[in-house]
Amino acid sequence: MANQPSIAERRTKVWEPYIRAKLGFRNHWYPVRLASEIAEGTPVPVKLLGEKILLNRVGGKVYAIQDRCLHRGVTLSDRVECYSKNTISCWYHGWTYRWDDGRLVDILTNPGSVQIGRRALKTFPVEEAKGLIFVYVGDGEPTPLIEDVPPGFLDENRAIHGQHRLVASNWRLGAENGFDAGHVLIHKNSILVKGNDIILPLGFAPGDPDQLTRSEVAAGKPKGVYDLLGEHSVPVFEGMIEGKPAIHGNIGSKRVAISISIWLPGVLKVEPWPDPELTQFEWYVPVDETSHLYFQTLGKVVTSKEAADSFEREFHEKWVGLALNGFNDDDIMARESMEPFYTDDRGWSEEILFEPDRAIIEWRGLASQHNRGIQEAR
Amino acid sequence: MANQPSIAERRTKVWEPYIRAKLGFRNHWYPVRLASEIAEGTPVPVKLLGEKILLNRVGGKVYAIQDRCLHRGVTLSDRVECYSKNTISCWYHGWTYRWDDGRLVDILTNPGSVQIGRRALKTFPVEEAKGLIFVYVGDGEPTPLIEDVPPGFLDENRAIHGQHRLVASNWRLGAENGFDAGHVLIHKNSILVKGNDIILPLGFAPGDPDQLTRSEVAAGKPKGVYDLLGEHSVPVFEGMIEGKPAIHGNIGSKRVAISISIWLPGVLKVEPWPDPELTQFEWYVPVDETSHLYFQTLGKVVTSKEAADSFEREFHEKWVGLALNGFNDDDIMARESMEPFYTDDRGWSEEILFEPDRAIIEWRGLASQHNRGIQEAR
Amino acid sequence: MANQPSIAERRTKVWEPYIRAKLGFRNHWYPVRLASEIAEGTPVPVKLLGEKILLNRVGGKVYAIQDRCLHRGVTLSDRVECYSKNTISCWYHGWTYRWDDGRLVDILTNPGSVQIGRRALKTFPVEEAKGLIFVYVGDGEPTPLIEDVPPGFLDENRAIHGQHRLVASNWRLGAENGFDAGHVLIHKNSILVKGNDIILPLGFAPGDPDQLTRSEVAAGKPKGVYDLLGEHSVPVFEGMIEGKPAIHGNIGSKRVAISISIWLPGVLKVEPWPDPELTQFEWYVPVDETSHLYFQTLGKVVTSKEAADSFEREFHEKWVGLALNGFNDDDIMARESMEPFYTDDRGWSEEILFEPDRAIIEWRGLASQHNRGIQEAR
Ligand code: FES
Ligand code: FES
Ligand code: FES
Repeated sequence: MANQPSIAERRTKVWEPYIRAKLGFRNHWYPVRLASEIAEGTPVPVKLLGEKILLNRVGGKVYAIQDRCLHRGVTLSDRVECYSKNTISCWYHGWTYRWDDGRLVDILTNPGSVQIGRRALKTFPVEEAKGLIFVYVGDGEPTPLIEDVPPGFLDENRAIHGQHRLVASNWRLGAENGFDAGHVLIHKNSILVKGNDIILPLGFAPGDPDQLTRSEVAAGKPKGVYDLLGEHSVPVFEGMIEGKPAIHGNIGSKRVAISISIWLPGVLKVEPWPDPELTQFEWYVPVDETSHLYFQTLGKVVTSKEAADSFEREFHEKWVGLALNGFNDDDIMARESMEPFYTDDRGWSEEILFEPDRAIIEWRGLASQHNRGIQEAR
Repeated sequence: MANQPSIAERRTKVWEPYIRAKLGFRNHWYPVRLASEIAEGTPVPVKLLGEKILLNRVGGKVYAIQDRCLHRGVTLSDRVECYSKNTISCWYHGWTYRWDDGRLVDILTNPGSVQIGRRALKTFPVEEAKGLIFVYVGDGEPTPLIEDVPPGFLDENRAIHGQHRLVASNWRLGAENGFDAGHVLIHKNSILVKGNDIILPLGFAPGDPDQLTRSEVAAGKPKGVYDLLGEHSVPVFEGMIEGKPAIHGNIGSKRVAISISIWLPGVLKVEPWPDPELTQFEWYVPVDETSHLYFQTLGKVVTSKEAADSFEREFHEKWVGLALNGFNDDDIMARESMEPFYTDDRGWSEEILFEPDRAIIEWRGLASQHNRGIQEAR
Repeated sequence: MANQPSIAERRTKVWEPYIRAKLGFRNHWYPVRLASEIAEGTPVPVKLLGEKILLNRVGGKVYAIQDRCLHRGVTLSDRVECYSKNTISCWYHGWTYRWDDGRLVDILTNPGSVQIGRRALKTFPVEEAKGLIFVYVGDGEPTPLIEDVPPGFLDENRAIHGQHRLVASNWRLGAENGFDAGHVLIHKNSILVKGNDIILPLGFAPGDPDQLTRSEVAAGKPKGVYDLLGEHSVPVFEGMIEGKPAIHGNIGSKRVAISISIWLPGVLKVEPWPDPELTQFEWYVPVDETSHLYFQTLGKVVTSKEAADSFEREFHEKWVGLALNGFNDDDIMARESMEPFYTDDRGWSEEILFEPDRAIIEWRGLASQHNRGIQEAR
């Protein structure tokens, strides 16, 4: 089969880092909450790549520290006690840490302890951009955020609105379902399709396998893969079974999803979507081995306050219900249904791929090669 | 102890296959549903020996296929989509399989895929008999069904009615509890006993240990063990504790349970039961390592339509409530209470058996020697 | 750090038995129920150090036997059947055991079995003292109870009242939280403190590390450690953060908790507490690897019937609500919050201790050296 040479070999060699990355890739930026969810002086616990992290906004800036006391390992957020603006004190024995650098600056129960000033909680770099809170899970100086988001996401006049929810599947199944061109079939009855008069085929009959993807791996730029199936295939509008037509795609008037790409550390860009003037950016953020935070955003280029306000209204009144929930609920179901097959890693070697999976194969290879580290269980 | 020579040796050597068969014996027939539960064109998912299987009736005949798509491993029955009478299409990318031979005959999202015609889902032979659906979990050509049911079950003029439920114990504990003559004690307060005026001792004082069982292992026939305790023992009607009578068995007028036998792959025959003209056939069908489907049936020889109808009414109005539920509920409790001791296989070596367990010992040996394969976890 | 030399070494060598003792120490006495909870002829199942045990009072005396039948391993208490005062019969096949020595004295279903008189259930020595039922989990002749309770607990004129509850943490985290002087901080808002006008600092600034504890390991006596922090430290009443006062302790009029000590196999004595005339004795009894029975008692020296009655009333009307529940609820929360860090034993090597933990270090060492055995999983 020309389209799929030596899959077994790719699997064991080329994809090996990807298969190990059950908890995601380390040394990357991930969105974890909306900026509006982190209020001044109101700590919020999150879990990210298996690590318990505590967020707080201090003097307008958001900080992230390890949510586990150095002393006896209790979870700080089990009982939040903040006695100064810049610190949090462990509720158990009063070890007191600064939000900005994690340093143990005092111990309420033993002010003369030699540990004071000598220890520090792990901190995580935080950036606030486009109304999202990004956390860098890694070691050392973080790379610029712009290298970990899809091209255009940070563009100055692009307004972004979003939401997130927890999905019961590994993050890779989220990423692969999103980037998988063949999965359009599951959306065939979505009210978004008829309701928004969208062209939605049942699938795609791919052409030359060598023209189906284009990778971007330039230094200092986001690393990702474009799925070119749309250009190099024949869309399928009639599903045949044993010679007889069985189902049909939707022939609407709006052409959408013309450019689909996926980027490290696991974020999809669909353009335009779900409407000709919008772009969907969505992250599959590893939480633990069997769940991910599905962080969905829509972006629109707006050049005036009125346009921005109108997009914000439209986002909440229309697109959340019709697209982010209604339409994408099918995707969540698909990821959760794949999970048992991949939970013990047997799926990676037992799956049988077909031609449109070429894009997924490319993504697995790129992610294996260009990630900045594998997160280990801790 | 003459009755129980070298138990330890039997355990580690003779019973080894039986102890490994946590998921049951492969290459055997098992009942999974009543025929009336599988309607035309209405797929029903079941789990059997650890395998997810999807049943459907097409053109009157029942088929069984693996309930996991070859492509990305999703469960087909998570969203059943059948676009032709003879096929089921995976809801995810439209891989379409025939019910009869499992062949991948089309892919709705990519009709030209090279995989079409080259792949097939695993199928399972199915037979419908006596109102039950039997599935053969195995490889290659199945053995005739008649070799996997107790003698007489398929007799032409024997009417059969039944029901099934899930029990939270390994299937072997179901089988051993059923075949265990000493377990009558748990039924001493059952309303069936008084209500149906049955003779029910507390137990049996066995005679010559070599006369307690008779095995049948003829080629081409069902393989099983008869418990001859009834013939070679003294029934115990008075329970003594430290020299004083403590409890009594029930001296009714009806003699039942005269012949008790167990057959591969795990089905009991009690004759007559629960009434002099009836026979109980019951299966302990492995579902997973810690649960089994308890498939209970009653058979009666009927020679006219009226007799058949009358037995059917009696089954539903009387025997389900009094025997299959009321009486056998005690058995379910016993199996579930044994489960923790055997879950990690320690029970097989730590149990201390006594004389009436001779029949169970014989069954373990026969099952170890005459099964057609051990089901491995998959 | 002078206070904490070669912690890593202590951990791996000196504490090794303590770290292995996830299920507690074998060959010791543990309280399991109030005497009033075990009525004549009314078996009560308990779990202790991972073992299922069945208690019963026969002729006024309490006995304890293994709650698992020797035959097929079922739990006797799943269906209690006692047909004579001195025995319990297994509900399954009627194996009948004596409460006092566990001997298999009869089998109801087969009165002539060779097993009768040759087998016995494991029994556990029981003592009733101060209104509590103590069980000895071990082998051979038990040591005197007086060696396994804190000094003074059994004093003739000391009245004892108590209660128990299940806590979702390993027993060692219970013991360490109780003995941990630095943990007073968690109680700062307890109504007991203000309500009973107690002096309660935030913590203690320890003096000479070599004077912080005193161990008692004399032969034939209880083995334990006294925390001398109270005498050799400066109590901290003002909690400072980066140079500014943040919180304050409670300067009441009653001096309590002057002497705190912990004893094998895991029982704390706080004197006086929660009032100048009372003493709290509390046990952390291992149930399984992740839970313990928190057995709390208060003792008071009483010299008349009136004084005894008055203490009993006061215990139920005042101290249960104010101290044993209200105050100690904070301790339960702390133990359960530590549990995840220590569940897989990583906490023992990753924790970072500070000066007031000297007493805990001493306890771990003493327990490692003077326990009478490690309970293994069974
Ligand atoms: S556990 Fe946090 S200060 Fe002790
Ligand atoms: S998973 Fe079934 S068709 Fe793709
Ligand atoms: S299991 Fe207790 S008597 Fe058989």
